[in-house]
Amino acid sequence: MDKTKDLFKKCIEYTIADEVKAQGVYPFFHPIDENEGPVVSFGGRKLVMAGSNNYLGLTADPRVKAASINAINKYGTSCSGSRYMTGTVNLHVELEEKLADFFEKERCLLFSTGYQTGQGIIPTLVQRGEYIVSDRDNHASLVAASIMAQGAGANLVRYNHNNMEDLERVLQTIPETAGRLIVSDGVFSVSGEIVDLPNLVKLAKKYNARILIDDAHAVGVIGKNGKGTPSEFNLVNEVDLIMGTFSKTFGSLGGYVVGDRSVINYIKHNASSLIFSASPTPASVAAVLATLEIIQTEPELMERLITNTDYVRQALIKAGFTLMPSRTAIVTVLISDQIKTLLFWKKLFDAGVYVNAFIRPGVMPGHEALRTSFMATHQQAHLDKVITEFCTIGKELGVI
Amino acid sequence: MDKTKDLFKKCIEYTIADEVKAQGVYPFFHPIDENEGPVVSFGGRKLVMAGSNNYLGLTADPRVKAASINAINKYGTSCSGSRYMTGTVNLHVELEEKLADFFEKERCLLFSTGYQTGQGIIPTLVQRGEYIVSDRDNHASLVAASIMAQGAGANLVRYNHNNMEDLERVLQTIPETAGRLIVSDGVFSVSGEIVDLPNLVKLAKKYNARILIDDAHAVGVIGKNGKGTPSEFNLVNEVDLIMGTFSKTFGSLGGYVVGDRSVINYIKHNASSLIFSASPTPASVAAVLATLEIIQTEPELMERLITNTDYVRQALIKAGFTLMPSRTAIVTVLISDQIKTLLFWKKLFDAGVYVNAFIRPGVMPGHEALRTSFMATHQQAHLDKVITEFCTIGKELGVI
Repeated sequence: MDKTKDLFKKCIEYTIADEVKAQGVYPFFHPIDENEGPVVSFGGRKLVMAGSNNYLGLTADPRVKAASINAINKYGTSCSGSRYMTGTVNLHVELEEKLADFFEKERCLLFSTGYQTGQGIIPTLVQRGEYIVSDRDNHASLVAASIMAQGAGANLVRYNHNNMEDLERVLQTIPETAGRLIVSDGVFSVSGEIVDLPNLVKLAKKYNARILIDDAHAVGVIGKNGKGTPSEFNLVNEVDLIMGTFSKTFGSLGGYVVGDRSVINYIKHNASSLIFSASPTPASVAAVLATLEIIQTEPELMERLITNTDYVRQALIKAGFTLMPSRTAIVTVLISDQIKTLLFWKKLFDAGVYVNAFIRPGVMPGHEALRTSFMATHQQAHLDKVITEFCTIGKELGVI
Repeated sequence: MDKTKDLFKKCIEYTIADEVKAQGVYPFFHPIDENEGPVVSFGGRKLVMAGSNNYLGLTADPRVKAASINAINKYGTSCSGSRYMTGTVNLHVELEEKLADFFEKERCLLFSTGYQTGQGIIPTLVQRGEYIVSDRDNHASLVAASIMAQGAGANLVRYNHNNMEDLERVLQTIPETAGRLIVSDGVFSVSGEIVDLPNLVKLAKKYNARILIDDAHAVGVIGKNGKGTPSEFNLVNEVDLIMGTFSKTFGSLGGYVVGDRSVINYIKHNASSLIFSASPTPASVAAVLATLEIIQTEPELMERLITNTDYVRQALIKAGFTLMPSRTAIVTVLISDQIKTLLFWKKLFDAGVYVNAFIRPGVMPGHEALRTSFMATHQQAHLDKVITEFCTIGKELGVI
C-alpha cells in the first residue's frame, strides 16, 4: 500500500494563499467589525464599501432589522428542520405567495441559500439523457448544479458567453427528441452585463427548450419596479423559471424560484437541496418580507442605485480605465495582470476603499480585474472617494 | 422539432403529491404558526413536537434569542457577500476559533448551510481519478456532494450500510495508487444508529484512506460534552475531518468542518459552495456562539435528552413496536407499509402528536417508517402523550 497517493497531498502542497499573505496583498476573508452599509470598519479603520451586493442598502434599514428581530422573538432562532418536515412556519408560506405575485408567476419556492437554489432546479428537472444548455460565464452555483446533474446522467453543453449564434449552434447539436433547459444569468455576476434575452427566447421557441434565468444581480436593479431581467425585456411569460437570491437586494440569506404550479410542485417534492436542508431562518424570511415591501413602495431607491453607479462608471471611463460592458450596479475594471490587480487592491484598501479582486484561478489569465458594485445609500462623497483613489492609484501603477 | 420531449412533461405527469393530499393524509410542508419547542401550534391547534432536530431545545432559549438580536442590531440582517469577498464579520472568525477548540482540531471553516458543507469538502478534495467510499445510508447532502464530485471526474463507490466487511471488500477494489476518502454519517439520520467507527478507523489505516465523518445528529447527543462520534469512541485524532450542522443541537442554520490547517486552508480557497455563497447571517452565527456556550456549561441538558429518548424508546419496544437500532435521540418506528404509514401519521397529527413520515421514494419499499426525535426540554407529560397515542393508534391499525 506504500504507493497510495495521499488524498491530502494536494492540500499540503497548496501554498499560493500563504505566499500572497506573505507579500501583504491577500485580498480575501478580511473580517468586518462594523457595517453601516456604504461605510464599513476593518480593524477599527473605516472604509468606503464598494464591493457589496447590498444594492439598496437595506441590511441596515431599521424596518428590516425590526422585522427580523420580531421573527426571532416569535419563532426562535431556527426551524430545526427542512421545509418538507418540521421546518415550515407561516412566514415561509407568506413570502412564497408574495414573491409569486411580485414576479407574476403562479408559484414560488424558497431555498435556504441562493447557492442551493440552482441545484434544487437543474438536477431535479434535467435528468438522464436530457440536456442543460449553459452560458460559459454563468454563476458558479449554476456550474456546480450542472455538474451535479451531469454526475446523475444528464448532459451538459455550453455556449460562448451571451453569444446567440453559438447558442443556436449548440442547440443544433442536441438530439432532436431530448428535453433541454437553457440556463443563463440575467445579469452576469462578474461583469454586470445583461443577457440577450429577446434572442435567447426566440431560440428557445425554435428549438423547444425551456428557460431558467438566474436573476441574482438583476432584482432591485433592472425591470419594472426592480422585477429583474424578464420584466426589463417584457418577457416574463416567455421565461419558464426565474430564480434569485436574498443576499443581494433583499438584504438577507436564501433563494427562490418562481414558475408554473406543476413545475414548482415537482421541484418541491423531488429536490434534494430543498427536502434535505434546514429551512431559511424566521429572521431571514422576515427580512425579505420587509425589503420586498420597501422595494415595491420606494422606487426612488432603485433610481438612486443606477444614478450612483452611472456616476462612477462614467468617471472611470473618462479617466481611461477599461470597463467590462454593463449598465447595472456592477462596474468591473479590467487590470489584466495578476500582481498589478493584487497591488491595486491593497493600495485601495490602504487608501480607504474596499473592492473585490478577481484573480486566477477564479478568472482566466489576462482577465484579472477589480470588481466594484454600488448601493442606493452611497453618498456623493463616497463615490468621489472611490473615483479619486482609483485614478490616483491607476496612474501610479500605469493602468491609466 | 415536433418530436422533442418537453422537459416539463415529468412535472405535468407528477400527481402523487396531489393524490395524497386528496386523501387527506399529506404529511409534508405543514406550516407551524407558533413554536415553543416541545409544543408547536398548527392552525391554532397545539401539538407535541416529536419530530424536530432541536435536540437541546435551544432555539427558544432567551439567551440564544438575545445573542441573535444583538448581532442584527450590530451587523444588520445579512453580510451581502461570501466569506471570501465582503461577507466575513468578526463573529465568523470568533466562531471558527471556538469550534476548532471545542472539537479539538487545528482549524474550522463555516458554511452557510449544513447541506452545502459536504459539497464544500468532497468535490474539493476528491478529484479526477480519486475515490469517494461512501456508506449506502449516508445523508442526502453527502450523496449530492458525491454525485457532484462524480460529475467532475471523481469515482464513487458505496459499501453496505455500516458493514465493515463490505467496506473492506470495496477498499480492495480501488486501484492501489488512488487517493481515497471514506465518508460516513456519525449518527445516521434515518435510524439514529452510530457508525462502527473503531473498525472504520482500522480499515482506513490499513488502506491509507482519509476519513470524513458527518456528525449532524451526534453533536450535543453523544461524546464527551456532546462532542460527537469521534469523541464517543476516543478517536478524535484518527478522524481527519469532522463536519456538522447548526440546524440541530446548535439551534441555528449553517454548517462547519474541522481538521488540520493545511486541509481547511485548501478547502477555504477552493470550495465553490464556500467561495460563491453568501456567508451565514450574523444572527445565525451569534445563535451558535450562544448555544456552544450553553452546551459546554450545562451538560445536564444532554443527559435529559438521552433520558427522555430512552424513556420513549423502552415504552415503544415494550408495547411491541419494531424500532430501528439506536441509542441516540432518534427513535424510528418501522411500519413497512406506505398507506399505513400515512394513516398512522395523520391519526397522530389529529391526536396532537407531530412526527415525521418516511415514505417512498425517500425510503425503499418495505422500509416505510415514522421517525420521532426528542428534546431535552420535553416534559414527562409530553413523552407520555407520544407513547399513549402511538400505542392506541398502533393497535387500531394492527401495527402492534
